[in-house]
Amino acid sequence: MKTIAEYSADVETSIRNLGLPGGKLASLYEPIEYGLSAGGKRIRPVLVLMGADAFGKDSSKALIPAVGIETFHNFTLLHDDVMDNSDLRRGRPTVHKKYDENTAILSGDTMLTLATKYIADVEDSKLRKVLDTFNDMAIKVYEGQRLDMDFETSENISVSDYLEMIEGKTGSLLGASAKIGAIIGDASDTDAQLMYEYGVMTGLAFQIQDDWLDTFGDYTTFGKPIGGDILNAKKTYLYVAALAEGGQTAEALRAAFSIPAGDMRVKTVTRLYEKLGMNEKCKKAVGGYSAKALKALNATSLGEEEKESFRKLAEKLIGRKK
Amino acid sequence: MKTIAEYSADVETSIRNLGLPGGKLASLYEPIEYGLSAGGKRIRPVLVLMGADAFGKDSSKALIPAVGIETFHNFTLLHDDVMDNSDLRRGRPTVHKKYDENTAILSGDTMLTLATKYIADVEDSKLRKVLDTFNDMAIKVYEGQRLDMDFETSENISVSDYLEMIEGKTGSLLGASAKIGAIIGDASDTDAQLMYEYGVMTGLAFQIQDDWLDTFGDYTTFGKPIGGDILNAKKTYLYVAALAEGGQTAEALRAAFSIPAGDMRVKTVTRLYEKLGMNEKCKKAVGGYSAKALKALNATSLGEEEKESFRKLAEKLIGRKK
Repeated sequence: MKTIAEYSADVETSIRNLGLPGGKLASLYEPIEYGLSAGGKRIRPVLVLMGADAFGKDSSKALIPAVGIETFHNFTLLHDDVMDNSDLRRGRPTVHKKYDENTAILSGDTMLTLATKYIADVEDSKLRKVLDTFNDMAIKVYEGQRLDMDFETSENISVSDYLEMIEGKTGSLLGASAKIGAIIGDASDTDAQLMYEYGVMTGLAFQIQDDWLDTFGDYTTFGKPIGGDILNAKKTYLYVAALAEGGQTAEALRAAFSIPAGDMRVKTVTRLYEKLGMNEKCKKAVGGYSAKALKALNATSLGEEEKESFRKLAEKLIGRKK
Repeated sequence: MKTIAEYSADVETSIRNLGLPGGKLASLYEPIEYGLSAGGKRIRPVLVLMGADAFGKDSSKALIPAVGIETFHNFTLLHDDVMDNSDLRRGRPTVHKKYDENTAILSGDTMLTLATKYIADVEDSKLRKVLDTFNDMAIKVYEGQRLDMDFETSENISVSDYLEMIEGKTGSLLGASAKIGAIIGDASDTDAQLMYEYGVMTGLAFQIQDDWLDTFGDYTTFGKPIGGDILNAKKTYLYVAALAEGGQTAEALRAAFSIPAGDMRVKTVTRLYEKLGMNEKCKKAVGGYSAKALKALNATSLGEEEKESFRKLAEKLIGRKK
């Protein structure tokens, strides 16, 4: 197996060589290239390549489907940025700010169909399984995004509602990436499903970790200002877990969030989370889902070297320290 | 073969029985049901069913893919309505007006993936061909929509630019519908391609006819106020064909369009179109593309009864009188 950095470089090369049309259609395709060139960790396509290599010893067969997964991921970012009216993505203007909203909608739609085309670049005998995995994942992502939007105006969100949301928005894409790679590598159905489980659980651990970092992290390693979720009254794992305490705790939480958005609110909510032991609760949840991911991975028929590569990837994703 | 009305009724029944999720996901799926229930002629899914019946004597195999085509069509309408900021669609509020813009974007995305799932509901041996036809068509539709958007701010559009645009936006979907039906019916590659040609040419004739009706039609049969395209300075077939005359004619056309949007502009532009013989020119183009559609149809291996059904469909679509 190659290193994560090598797989990531393979993804970058494939993206650069896509050869999308230009000329009079540049107004459609240039925003797509702009979105895809923003970089990032490329964790999802790397998972596809790793799966194909681990099971079938040939990641080159999975390059185009891997780019398909990354194209899908970037399509969701592009439309999410329109819906959230975000100005920046990875330090650069978002597509709808650099171009315009209609461009972001239409080029985003085009990315979804391109992603489906790229994903379909597999042997005929694997097309059905790969396509079904991809489409079912996409539906889960939209459902997760819808729940997330509905949470904004909802007062009572349970921990299980929250977990369903992040499984859709974050877990399913990591799961499908690992599974599609495994299918391309000719893994058994059992192994492919275990890899899906590995991806989903890694995604849950990652998202809860991300929520935790937003409150308890360190600016220099997190890369975003601390407290953003509290300022935006986001329904994070910390929030829903605190809310689940009910009674006076829920009252105190709502009161803290009624403080005008600013330092005072961040300090008050953070202190309340600390008092409620949310720091530890998060770490426990992250540890729990990480363990589930590794359990699924260990149950596959993969050799120790391959398992170790996937362990490293999960660690890279979740292991970000405060 | 059944009648067009019977195929259309089959489509309606299939759409009503889709059984999309409700409950807490109603906010995602209800707007989709709303969009799909607006009715309309259902010409595109009818073409799928007719193709499957004409070649394979079994339209029931094509019901879900036919709904897939209609779902795709409605997805494009939903996003187009956001991009055009349209208030009404078939006499009802558009999805982004009835709900909100973010809902229209996300439920539209969901429709595109649902359409891909439905389209894939074919025998494994046909999946590759059907999926490729669908994805290539979708890309053409986006490219056509992008050209249409760019035309709004472009001063010099040739007749061939315009034809490329409507082939993408309108022709390719009718072509892919006829072709996918034929593939499901086990048509030969040659026949499937001829049916694509039949659909594309019918689409071109239909779109030019639609442009013509907007200026020279009759309100009671057209169903929309006459002159809307002139008021909105749309780059129609009439406009680009008149512009192609160049010189003083092009000057006169631009001058007529610089009149403030109102009755005076509609009258002046209409008179200019009449003087330039656009009425006859349009009819000739419609006749020419209709003839090409029938030529492709006649070249297929279909029997006379089946050919007659497709002739009737083209006539129903294009034969709308002033």
